[in-house]
Amino acid sequence: MANITKKVSWSSRADESGATGEGTPLLNGSEQPRHSRQDSLRGRPKEIPHNEKLLSLKFESLDYDNIENQLFLEEERRMSYMGFRCLEISRWVVCGLIGFLTGLIACFIDIAVEELAGFKYQVVKENIEKFTEVGGLSISLILWAVLNSAIVMIGAIIVAFFEPIAAGSGIPQIKCYLNGVKIPRVVRLKTLVVKVCGVICSVVGGLAVGKEGPMIHSGAVVAAGVSQGRSTSLKRDFKIFEYFRRDTEKRDFVSAGAAAGVSAAFGAPVGGVLFSLEEGASFWNQMLTWRIFFASMISTFTLNFFLSIYHNKTGDLSSPGLINFGRFESDSVAYNLYEIPLFIAMGAIGGLLGALFNVLNYWLTIFRIRYVHRPCLQVMEAMLVAAVTATVSFTMIYFSNDCQPLGPEHTEEYPLQLFCADGEYNSMATAFFNTPERSVRSLFHNQPDTYNPLTLGLFTLTYFFLACWTYGLAVSAGVFIPSLLIGAAWGRLFGRLLAAITSSGSIWADPGKYALIGAAAQLGGIVRMTLSLTVIMVEATGNVTYGLPIMLVLMTAKIVGDYFVEGLYDIHIKLQSVPFLHWEAPATSHWLTAREVMSSPVTCLNRIEKVGTIVDTLSNTSTNHNGFPVVVQVTGSDEPAKLCGLILRSQLIVLLKHKVFVELARSRLTQRKLQLKDFRDAYPRFPPIQSIHVSQDERECMMDLTEFMNATPYTVPQETSLPRVFKLFRALGLRHLVVVDDENRVVGLVTRKDLARYHLGKHGLEELQLAQT
Amino acid sequence: MANITKKVSWSSRADESGATGEGTPLLNGSEQPRHSRQDSLRGRPKEIPHNEKLLSLKFESLDYDNIENQLFLEEERRMSYMGFRCLEISRWVVCGLIGFLTGLIACFIDIAVEELAGFKYQVVKENIEKFTEVGGLSISLILWAVLNSAIVMIGAIIVAFFEPIAAGSGIPQIKCYLNGVKIPRVVRLKTLVVKVCGVICSVVGGLAVGKEGPMIHSGAVVAAGVSQGRSTSLKRDFKIFEYFRRDTEKRDFVSAGAAAGVSAAFGAPVGGVLFSLEEGASFWNQMLTWRIFFASMISTFTLNFFLSIYHNKTGDLSSPGLINFGRFESDSVAYNLYEIPLFIAMGAIGGLLGALFNVLNYWLTIFRIRYVHRPCLQVMEAMLVAAVTATVSFTMIYFSNDCQPLGPEHTEEYPLQLFCADGEYNSMATAFFNTPERSVRSLFHNQPDTYNPLTLGLFTLTYFFLACWTYGLAVSAGVFIPSLLIGAAWGRLFGRLLAAITSSGSIWADPGKYALIGAAAQLGGIVRMTLSLTVIMVEATGNVTYGLPIMLVLMTAKIVGDYFVEGLYDIHIKLQSVPFLHWEAPATSHWLTAREVMSSPVTCLNRIEKVGTIVDTLSNTSTNHNGFPVVVQVTGSDEPAKLCGLILRSQLIVLLKHKVFVELARSRLTQRKLQLKDFRDAYPRFPPIQSIHVSQDERECMMDLTEFMNATPYTVPQETSLPRVFKLFRALGLRHLVVVDDENRVVGLVTRKDLARYHLGKHGLEELQLAQT
Repeated sequence: MANITKKVSWSSRADESGATGEGTPLLNGSEQPRHSRQDSLRGRPKEIPHNEKLLSLKFESLDYDNIENQLFLEEERRMSYMGFRCLEISRWVVCGLIGFLTGLIACFIDIAVEELAGFKYQVVKENIEKFTEVGGLSISLILWAVLNSAIVMIGAIIVAFFEPIAAGSGIPQIKCYLNGVKIPRVVRLKTLVVKVCGVICSVVGGLAVGKEGPMIHSGAVVAAGVSQGRSTSLKRDFKIFEYFRRDTEKRDFVSAGAAAGVSAAFGAPVGGVLFSLEEGASFWNQMLTWRIFFASMISTFTLNFFLSIYHNKTGDLSSPGLINFGRFESDSVAYNLYEIPLFIAMGAIGGLLGALFNVLNYWLTIFRIRYVHRPCLQVMEAMLVAAVTATVSFTMIYFSNDCQPLGPEHTEEYPLQLFCADGEYNSMATAFFNTPERSVRSLFHNQPDTYNPLTLGLFTLTYFFLACWTYGLAVSAGVFIPSLLIGAAWGRLFGRLLAAITSSGSIWADPGKYALIGAAAQLGGIVRMTLSLTVIMVEATGNVTYGLPIMLVLMTAKIVGDYFVEGLYDIHIKLQSVPFLHWEAPATSHWLTAREVMSSPVTCLNRIEKVGTIVDTLSNTSTNHNGFPVVVQVTGSDEPAKLCGLILRSQLIVLLKHKVFVELARSRLTQRKLQLKDFRDAYPRFPPIQSIHVSQDERECMMDLTEFMNATPYTVPQETSLPRVFKLFRALGLRHLVVVDDENRVVGLVTRKDLARYHLGKHGLEELQLAQT
Repeated sequence: MANITKKVSWSSRADESGATGEGTPLLNGSEQPRHSRQDSLRGRPKEIPHNEKLLSLKFESLDYDNIENQLFLEEERRMSYMGFRCLEISRWVVCGLIGFLTGLIACFIDIAVEELAGFKYQVVKENIEKFTEVGGLSISLILWAVLNSAIVMIGAIIVAFFEPIAAGSGIPQIKCYLNGVKIPRVVRLKTLVVKVCGVICSVVGGLAVGKEGPMIHSGAVVAAGVSQGRSTSLKRDFKIFEYFRRDTEKRDFVSAGAAAGVSAAFGAPVGGVLFSLEEGASFWNQMLTWRIFFASMISTFTLNFFLSIYHNKTGDLSSPGLINFGRFESDSVAYNLYEIPLFIAMGAIGGLLGALFNVLNYWLTIFRIRYVHRPCLQVMEAMLVAAVTATVSFTMIYFSNDCQPLGPEHTEEYPLQLFCADGEYNSMATAFFNTPERSVRSLFHNQPDTYNPLTLGLFTLTYFFLACWTYGLAVSAGVFIPSLLIGAAWGRLFGRLLAAITSSGSIWADPGKYALIGAAAQLGGIVRMTLSLTVIMVEATGNVTYGLPIMLVLMTAKIVGDYFVEGLYDIHIKLQSVPFLHWEAPATSHWLTAREVMSSPVTCLNRIEKVGTIVDTLSNTSTNHNGFPVVVQVTGSDEPAKLCGLILRSQLIVLLKHKVFVELARSRLTQRKLQLKDFRDAYPRFPPIQSIHVSQDERECMMDLTEFMNATPYTVPQETSLPRVFKLFRALGLRHLVVVDDENRVVGLVTRKDLARYHLGKHGLEELQLAQT
C-alpha cells in the first residue's frame, strides 16, 4: 500500500490549478483496480496513462466563462447597441459560412469516394472475370487484397505519421472539446486535411468503415477555423472576427460546426442540433440554438444542391445527406401494436451485441496501446486489416451460393455476377462489394426474398468482427455505418425468420422494416445516444412513422448495454484518461465538500507582484499551474491576504512578452498600455514561458495585475457540498473555482480534474488517480 | 417628474428579497412611456399592473436551486446508492404516469369533441335543411347562433367564475412557470378540470379555436399533481414520491408534462421535448431530457392506442396526435430550388400577418383589461363572439357560390349541400362548419380545384379577425389551430394564384404544399418559436422532406415579425407584468454592476434569533420578503456580521408552526427535532404568517436557524457586472443571490425582479418600474 500512496502523491500534481499538489488521500485504497496496482508494483510507467482508472493531467481545460477583467469590461461598455447588433449579424454570417464549407467538404468526400470506388469496382470486376476464366482464382484474390491494402496504406501513413489525432471518427475528441477539455491539435487545418484524405482512402480501400463520423470532426475544424478569421497554420490573419478569439465564442461555433457535420452526414439538421446539445452545450441558449440550427440547415442544403448537380438532377433537393436510407413508404410497412414487444426484444439484442462489440474493442484498444504504438506498426496493422477484409469477403462470396435472378426491377447499381449463372447476381457479393451505405440501403429496401438467411447470418458475423477490429485503427473512419450495416443484416434476418415462423408473407413481417429497427438497435447499443440518434434516424429515413419504435429500441438498447459496459465513445475517452465532466456529480457524493475536493495550498500572486516571482512561478515545471488567484495584502497589517481576482497563465505570458512592467527603481510608474487585441492575437497558441526572455534587471520590476485579472471570480465556501460545486462548475463552464473561508481568504482551488476524479463505480464512489502523462 | 420618482419609491418594495426597498433611481427618467406617466399623473392605480412597462411584485419565484441545509445533506448522506437508484426509477415511473394520464386526457377531449360536434352537426344540418325548405332562413341562423352561444356560455362561465387562470391556451402561464415564476393556482387540479371542460365547450361551440394549446397546460397540471403523490385539493396524500416535494424536482416533472402535452396534441414527441427545453430548462441535463422524452413517447402512444380503439382500428398506431395533418406523399409534392425564394416570401407574409394579429390582439387585450374585467361581462363577450362567429359563417356560406361536385373520391366526412345543387357540396360551408382540424387537413390535401380563390380569400379575412378577437376571451382555447387554418387558407390561395400565373397544372404549384408552408408561416409569425415548431410541424406532417422549407419559413417569419412586435405569448406575459427572465442579460448592460442592481439594505437574521424578531419581520406587510440572509456576529466584537447562510420565509413559517424554540429561560436548550418531512408536508401551500399564533412568552424564546438555513448560498462581490450576475442567476435557477463585500459581509440581495427590470428598449437599456399589484 505504501507504494501506491507514494505513487499517488507523485502523480497528483495539480495541472489546472495554482495548488501545489499535496496529494489528497485516496478514498478507498482497498478498491484500487487490480491491474493498476500490478502495474505500479512492476513499475511500468509507460502504460499508466492508458489505464481507465487514471486521469491525465496533460489535458488543459477550456474557459467557457468570460474573463471579465477591466479591459474586457471597458470594451463592452464602449460598444454601442449597434455594435452588438453587428456582432450578432457576424455570428450568423460565420454560422452560414461554417454550414456552407462543411457541406462542400461532405460533397467533396462523397464525390471522391463515389468516383474512386466506381473506378476500383471496374478494375476489380474486369480482372476477376478475366482471371476466373483462366482459372487463376488466387490471382484475383491477391489483386483485390493488394489494391485495397495499398489504398488503405496511403490513408494510414498520412494519419500515423502526420496527424495521429485524425484517426478514428473524431467524435470522442469533439465530445471532449465541447465538454471543455482542450485536446491538442484537434481543430487545426492540418487535421482537417488529413482527416478528409484519410477517410476517402479508408472507404475506397474497402474497410468496414463509414464516412459519416469524420464529417462531425470536419465540421468542428471548419468552425474553429472560420470563426477565428485567420489560420495560424497558413500564417494568414484576415483581421476579421477578432471578437470571437476566445474559448467561449469558439466553443459556440464548434458546436455549430459539429451540428453542421451531422446534418451533412445524415441529412438531419434537427438531429445535428440535438447532437451538439446532447454532447456539448451545458447551458441552453435560444439564440445559440438557432444559429446552430441555421448552420445545420445551410450545410445540408449546400450538400444537397451540389450533389444534385453532380447527379444531373440540378435543383432537386429532396435527397439530403451523405447517407440516405431511402424512402420508407408508410402504407406498406406500417407497424402494429403487437410488434412493439418484438421491437423491444430487438433493442435488447442490439444492446447485447453492442456491449459485446464495445468489450471486444476495449480489449483490442488496450492491446494496441501496449503493443502497436509505433506509426509503422500502425500502418502495417491497417494494411493487414484491409487484406483480411478483402480475403474474407472473397471467401464468403466464393462459398456463397445465394444467387438471385437479375430481374428488370433490381435496384442494385452494381450487380455482381460472380460465380453465378448468367442472368443472376451474387447477393453476398452485393452486400460485401458495395460501399457500406449502398448495402444498408439495399438491406432496407430490397424485395423480401433478396437475401437468404444464411447469407445474412454469415454477413452479420463476419462484418461484426471486421468492424470491431477496424475501429481504432490508425485510419480516419466512422463506426456509424458499419454498426447500421451489422444491425440491418441481423434485423433483416430476424424479419425473415419471423416471416418463416408465422404465416409467410404477412405484411407486418416485412424484412426491410426489421432491418431498420435492427440497424437502430445495433447503433444504439454501440454508441448509446438516445434523443439525437432517434431524430437522426427519423430524419434519415424521411418518415416519422417509425419515430416511436426507434425510440423504444434505442432506449432498450441503451439500458441493456449500459448494464454491461459504457458506450464506445466513452470507453475511448476513458482510455485516454481525459478529465471528462458528466452531467451531474455522482449521486452518493453529498458527504464530500469543497474542502476535501479542492487542491491546496494555492500559489497566489499579489496584485502588484515582482516580475521575478511571476517568472519563477510560471517556470516551475513540477506544478505547471494555469490559473492563479490574485490576493491583496493590507499594507502594514497582519491580516491574511484577501482574494481580489484571478489571472491565467496565458494572460501572464502575454504580459511578460509585452514587458508590461512598472519600473519602480526609475520611478516610471506608468505601465505600457496593453489592449485586449494583444491577448486576442496571441490566442490560442500562447508561447511557453521558456521562450520569453526576462533579464535580471527586469526581474526586479513590478507588475500591476489589476487591469488584467478577472476581478470577480466565482467563489464557494469550504463547506459547499460536492454536488453543489459540481453544478456551479458545470453549468457555467468554469475552469477555476476559488474556495474561500468566511473572511474571503483563499484556501483552495477547484479545477476540472478535482471534480472528474470522483466517479461512481461498482462499489460506490471511487476516486481516480492522477497521472502527469 | 417628482411625482413619478415618488411613485417609484413607493412601488419598488422588494418582494422576493429581504431588502427594505429604497427605490433604485430610474435609469432614464425621461424615457418613461407616455401613457404610464399619464396614468400615474391621473392616479389610476387600477390600470398600473397591466402596463407592460411595469413589473409586478405579486409574483413569487420558484427555487430551482436545492436548499442545501443540514437536514437535506444528512438525508442525502444517509441514502445509499440503491436509494438513489430507486429514486431514479421512481422518476421514470412518474414520467410514465404523466405521459399516460396526459394521453388519456387528450383522448377524452378528442372523443368528447368528436361526439358532441357530430351531434351538433346533425341537429344543425337537419334544422337548416328543414327551415330552408319552409323559407325561414333567419330561423336557422338564429338556431345556430343560439346553440353555439349556449355551449360557449357554459365554457365561459366555468372559466370566468370558477378558475380564471384556465382561460386561454395556458402556454404563457407554463412558460412563466418553467422560467421560474410562481403563477398562483396554475397547476391545480381544479384548473385542469375547468380547462378540459372549457376547451370542449369552446371547440364544440364553433369558436375559432383549437384544442391543442390547452393540452400543454393540462400535461403540466397532471405532472405537478402526479409527481407530488398527493392532491391538496382532494385532501388525499398517498405518502409516495415525498422526495419530489420541492421546486427543483417539480419543475423537472412539469417540463415533462408540458412535453407530453405537446406530444399528445401534435403527435410530436421530439417537438415536445424541444418545446420544454426551449421554454423552460435553463440547464440541459441528459437524464432529464430522456425522461421528458419518455413521457412524450408514452403520451402519444397512449393517445394513439385509445384513439385506434375508438376508431375501430385497434392497434394501428400510425396516426399520432390530436391534430393530424395527413400524410404528404413526397413524390407528388417535392419542392425545387427555385421555390425557395417563394417560400421565403411566404415566410415574410406570415411574419407581417402575424405581427398584425399580435398588434390587434394587444390592443384588444388592453381594452379587455380596462373595460371587460368583470366575470359576467367576460361571459357575455364570449357569447357575443360565438354568435358573431356563427352569423359570419352563415352569411359567408349563404353568399358563397363555391359549389363543388360531390365526387366519389371526396374526402370530407361531413359534406354540406347547403344552398348548392344536388350532387354538389358547399366548400365554404366545409371550411367553416368542420372542426378547424379537419378544415386544415382538407386545405392541405384536397384536390387542387376544391376551393376557389374567392372562397379562400374571404375565409382568410374573416377567420383572421375572428381568431384575433377570440384569443384572450375568458374561455379555454388555443391559438395554434386557428393560426394554421388562416395560414393554410392564404397559402392555398397563394398556390392557386401561382398556378394561375404560371403554366397551369405544373407540379410545383400544388396548392396543398403552399397551404402547408402558409400554415407554418402564419403560426411562426404569431407565436415565434423556431426550432421546436419546425420539429412539431415536421412530425405532424409525417414527412421530413419539408423540414428545410419549414425552417426557412419559420425563421423568416420570426425575423420579420420581431421587427414589429413580440410573439403573442410574450405580449401576454408582458401585459401581466410578470418578471420573466430572458436567456441573457441585455447586451449593453455591462456598465451595471451588482451594486447598482441589488436591493439594499437587507433585512438579515442572526443565526440564533429571537422569535419575536422573526415574527415581526415576517409580519411586515410593507416589505413581504421571502428570503433572509443569516449572519453571525462574533460575540463581544465590533466587527460587522458575516454571512453564514440563507433562510426562506417558508422555512421560518414551518419552524414557527412547529414551535421549534429554544427556551432560554427554562434552560431547556434542546430544540424540538424537526424532520425534512415536516417541510415537505407543508409544501407548496405554506400558511401565511397571520395564521400562526405566537404567544408573548414564546416571542421571548430564541430560535436556532443553523440546521435549517442553506449554509452555502451563492454569493457575488459588489463589482460583478450585470451579465455575470444574470448568467449565474439564470443558469442555476436561483431565487436569491447574496451580494457581499470583500469581508464576506452582506451588502445586498439580488432577486428575479432586480434582473428582469432591465430590458433593451428602442432607445437602449430601459428600466421597468415595480408595482405592488
